[in-house]
Amino acid sequence: MSVQFQDLANAIRALSMDAVQAANSGHPGMPMGMADVATVLFGEYLKFDASAPGWADRDRFVLSAGHGSMLIYSLLHLTGYAAPTMDDIRNFRQMHSPCAGHPENFELAGVECTTGPLGQGLAMAVGMAMAERHLNAEFGDDLVNHRTWVIAGDGCLMEGINHEAVGLAGHLKLGQLNVLWDDNRITIDGATDLSTSEDIRARHLASGWHVVDCDGHDPVSIRAAMDAAIADPRPSLIACATVIGKGAPNKQGTSATHGSPLGAAEVDAARAALGWSHAPFVIPDDIRAVWAEFGRRGAGEHAAWSQRLAASDKATELNRRMAGELPAGFSLSQHVAALLAEPQKVATRKASELALEAINPRLPETVGGSADLTGSNNTKTAGLGVMNATNYGGRYVNYGIREFGMAAAMNGMALHGGVIPYGGTFLVFSDYCRAAIRLSAVQRQRVIYVMTHDSIGLGEDGPTHQPVEHVMSLRMMPNLLTFRPGDAVETAECWELALQASSTPTVLALTRQNLPQFRRVEAEGNQCARGAYRIKTAGNKRQVVLIGTGSEVSLALAVADQLEAAGIGADVVSMPCWSLFDAQPESYRADLLPADILKVSMEAGVTFGWERYVGRDGLTFGIDSFGASAPAEALFDHFGLTPDKITPAVRAALGQG
Amino acid sequence: MSVQFQDLANAIRALSMDAVQAANSGHPGMPMGMADVATVLFGEYLKFDASAPGWADRDRFVLSAGHGSMLIYSLLHLTGYAAPTMDDIRNFRQMHSPCAGHPENFELAGVECTTGPLGQGLAMAVGMAMAERHLNAEFGDDLVNHRTWVIAGDGCLMEGINHEAVGLAGHLKLGQLNVLWDDNRITIDGATDLSTSEDIRARHLASGWHVVDCDGHDPVSIRAAMDAAIADPRPSLIACATVIGKGAPNKQGTSATHGSPLGAAEVDAARAALGWSHAPFVIPDDIRAVWAEFGRRGAGEHAAWSQRLAASDKATELNRRMAGELPAGFSLSQHVAALLAEPQKVATRKASELALEAINPRLPETVGGSADLTGSNNTKTAGLGVMNATNYGGRYVNYGIREFGMAAAMNGMALHGGVIPYGGTFLVFSDYCRAAIRLSAVQRQRVIYVMTHDSIGLGEDGPTHQPVEHVMSLRMMPNLLTFRPGDAVETAECWELALQASSTPTVLALTRQNLPQFRRVEAEGNQCARGAYRIKTAGNKRQVVLIGTGSEVSLALAVADQLEAAGIGADVVSMPCWSLFDAQPESYRADLLPADILKVSMEAGVTFGWERYVGRDGLTFGIDSFGASAPAEALFDHFGLTPDKITPAVRAALGQG
Repeated sequence: MSVQFQDLANAIRALSMDAVQAANSGHPGMPMGMADVATVLFGEYLKFDASAPGWADRDRFVLSAGHGSMLIYSLLHLTGYAAPTMDDIRNFRQMHSPCAGHPENFELAGVECTTGPLGQGLAMAVGMAMAERHLNAEFGDDLVNHRTWVIAGDGCLMEGINHEAVGLAGHLKLGQLNVLWDDNRITIDGATDLSTSEDIRARHLASGWHVVDCDGHDPVSIRAAMDAAIADPRPSLIACATVIGKGAPNKQGTSATHGSPLGAAEVDAARAALGWSHAPFVIPDDIRAVWAEFGRRGAGEHAAWSQRLAASDKATELNRRMAGELPAGFSLSQHVAALLAEPQKVATRKASELALEAINPRLPETVGGSADLTGSNNTKTAGLGVMNATNYGGRYVNYGIREFGMAAAMNGMALHGGVIPYGGTFLVFSDYCRAAIRLSAVQRQRVIYVMTHDSIGLGEDGPTHQPVEHVMSLRMMPNLLTFRPGDAVETAECWELALQASSTPTVLALTRQNLPQFRRVEAEGNQCARGAYRIKTAGNKRQVVLIGTGSEVSLALAVADQLEAAGIGADVVSMPCWSLFDAQPESYRADLLPADILKVSMEAGVTFGWERYVGRDGLTFGIDSFGASAPAEALFDHFGLTPDKITPAVRAALGQG
Repeated sequence: MSVQFQDLANAIRALSMDAVQAANSGHPGMPMGMADVATVLFGEYLKFDASAPGWADRDRFVLSAGHGSMLIYSLLHLTGYAAPTMDDIRNFRQMHSPCAGHPENFELAGVECTTGPLGQGLAMAVGMAMAERHLNAEFGDDLVNHRTWVIAGDGCLMEGINHEAVGLAGHLKLGQLNVLWDDNRITIDGATDLSTSEDIRARHLASGWHVVDCDGHDPVSIRAAMDAAIADPRPSLIACATVIGKGAPNKQGTSATHGSPLGAAEVDAARAALGWSHAPFVIPDDIRAVWAEFGRRGAGEHAAWSQRLAASDKATELNRRMAGELPAGFSLSQHVAALLAEPQKVATRKASELALEAINPRLPETVGGSADLTGSNNTKTAGLGVMNATNYGGRYVNYGIREFGMAAAMNGMALHGGVIPYGGTFLVFSDYCRAAIRLSAVQRQRVIYVMTHDSIGLGEDGPTHQPVEHVMSLRMMPNLLTFRPGDAVETAECWELALQASSTPTVLALTRQNLPQFRRVEAEGNQCARGAYRIKTAGNKRQVVLIGTGSEVSLALAVADQLEAAGIGADVVSMPCWSLFDAQPESYRADLLPADILKVSMEAGVTFGWERYVGRDGLTFGIDSFGASAPAEALFDHFGLTPDKITPAVRAALGQG
């Protein structure tokens, strides 16, 4: 008896329910419900070669409903990816298994992005589709021409970020983006109509999408819908009517199948109902053979592409870009030299623009943008061109008032490869996209956040626009470089480090207000690379070390001048990046911040955390309340961040008040 | 010559452009563009009494496009509110003026909420409209029956949170909510079509809204649209076609009017174009008189309402609720006593449910909910009933997968008054709603966030679901109580504190996993009120103080047992709330954490920040990377958070390894 379509789909169902049952933890409902759709997709539509997960021109597949992770683990295993093995699947959700609770891009080739936080997978897919069209514009149909497929659930579609992602995709007319909506009418709390009455189809049409329906358990219907999606020039929402937990006879169609094992009895009942008589984790050879054939389906197309690439004069550049390598010898030392030759008293947001003017002509892979604050974030340099539906080759994105959508799209672009995305908003609105910044870090992606207006220094806009806790709260996120440069030279150095950090995202916290350039003499290497360094050595006998970041480095220097005038020796340390400093050898750190000397921090943000460097007996100058609306100078005075207010306090602490 | 409609609207325009010009900072475009709409609203539709801004049954007005703050300052001043005075307006955006850059609810009566972070005003208005219908269901049309009006711009509508807010309002059929959309086709970066192609009307219709258009500069057209909105049972979007900066002859209709002063020349030109010959900050008496009459328009209705209230047997209860006062003598001491009598080994999320079972029957003002994680957050107790379009009296909201929308709606409910909102999601998804948590804190509102699954203790769901930096990053937000209780008794105490904190929001970080109840003996008063307290006193000579929070208090106790068994005296301090501890007298803090004793912190999150209490030479046990997917017990072992891994390290630090 030949292998039937249902056998193929049931292999996914069986692996999914058995793995969840074995782990006694997980989400069987989605993989079982979407098994048929996934079988059609991987069996007939998705362009991929299981033996070459890194093929640049593969279709991208994003499981936005990441809790259904057993779906993709099943697909990767069955189609013959090197991993996961069946042992990996047996160890689903156990320590060291690449089959983590939610799919992690760093665990398995073929998992294009980490998903689980709802809505973000789809929004990252928008970024992937943007990168694809952008690279297509540069490298042509022969080398870059692929689709982005997404499986998303009601949760993904209900999240706010979906509005931003759908809006952006519709505006950019990303016709190669196809979203397979698992329309099962169930959420965790119960039926979707407990919480929503939205006409999802109408909403997508309103945003310039194509919408098509299918029966998500009928391959003929699924194929017709996919064909229609491919034929339509708009991004497509393919509404797949499904039954959650399909195959579990007593639980299917209910939220009981969503996030818990079915239980041994229901698993047995499902085996009977599906006609799947094989033991757990056993896939019969004939079924496995058909799946393996699916995994080889794209090999020929891949080979043809490789030949075209080999013949192309763009091969070296495309390979470099996709590898994420900067051009050989890239640095900003010339730009720094120019700043030393002609010092600039500018805001660091402006210094960032100056750096970008040096970067963008030399790095064709940068794609900049802003969430509707271009003139404030200073993210647009001459000649980039705007990326839109009539010019995908443009290198600047008007993201609109969509901070979260922008951040997720940048994650998607970085994950796609071939581009280095950077984008701006006000630092205070990092709160709007914090969940995506976290995914940049989790996924180890080079995404650069240009966050301007980084303190009360922005002035009159007041508490809602003045970051107070933001810099500190970003510093504690693992695998994130949070820079707060203090002048134009440091800003250039931080930009250089951000570009070099190929598996770490960066936040650049930049001022609105002008700052003097304190870096005036040539230094050996990138000073910011060590996270902190001595910018002034005590003239008199050293009695205190002043530590500043960003706009408060100049403040620390001014305080030091007052102290030295009174005969008190003061070192000044600029500390643009805590995590890089913490990674330095103990000897370096102890030299900069000796244990036996009074240490004083100055930063226009919360003092919380500074005890790490100044100890319990140091002094911390900062702002531990929300800000206020007034001109910047009045605010710095009001919050006590002036030399005339700090110097006496330092002297008093030294017993020299 | 009698006062014309245009004179009234031009008074707003003049005040707005003059105040921005005087401050040399601000946003004239929106107030000038929406002056006509606002004049119709305040002159003829909004139910208010300028002499009684606290009238419970007033219509609520939310300026969601908060950058246009001069619009509401003009309106409040002209209609005769006690503040702002003309001097306040002259000092727009200066230190100590209540006319801050963006409207602040704590600065001016009549400013119903703080706005500026885009999208949130409208989303808070949804919460206000929910509270109104909810209280109407209990107190009846005679006492609670008012509308919520919003002015929103394209930015508010493009933000992701708008999708959540519009979806929730449509689902709940909040017919008394009317959104006046400033449809001026301009954003900061330029024309809206730079970044969006959405059919906004169709999207709202898809979510169950009523949509009506008007010419935003024609009072007849505006009135017709408002009448239609009032007549329709759905929430209404009133699309007001306007010209941004209307009246500034050379700049109107462009983004140049959005966020910068017009400049002296253009202000002069606008005066000429508008026929406004009066000096800056001068409003002619006849125009002022008409505006003042608008301010008294609702006085009669207010008086009639006061009479109905006085005659009602519900007056005391409504007054108590609107004042935000708990019932006299409210405490959870009985519940705590029951826990002491019968200790519970439960997760703190379950302990939270037990507390809510004691709270909800006694506080009819609580309105609970969850962002589609009801069974996980344990937020629903028996008998609450679901709030929906057929039962506004229900006290539980199925918010759907809308964390940000939930948080903003809770802010709106708290601002409206009469209810105490609490709502749940996973702690890691505090990132999705962090911008609204911040607004809870800025606005000084009693909103209670029930954030469960607070560490790697959630187990298999892995890094995307495991908070690592979240508790710490919330602790640094000003005016926010972040609690991490360690057992059922502490959970009850933290709930009590959250309810008593009438002008401070609370985050309760709660475990998924079961914890032993270490609080077994009666104590005097609420132990958590001091933020930290000694839960165990050293038996042997004290050599170390162990500090734990949440699930790691039990860990600290287990470590202490091992140390004491080895003859090493160890205090254990439970620290459920840093900010409350930091507010204690120095003597109390020094007694708990003496300077001359080794201090050791244990918390399943970043160690960043713990130097505040353990100093630079203390020990910190925590997790400074992202988590992993595995059963909880395996994770605690993997990350070194077990007695067998910590005790030897403590002994080594004491030289007794």
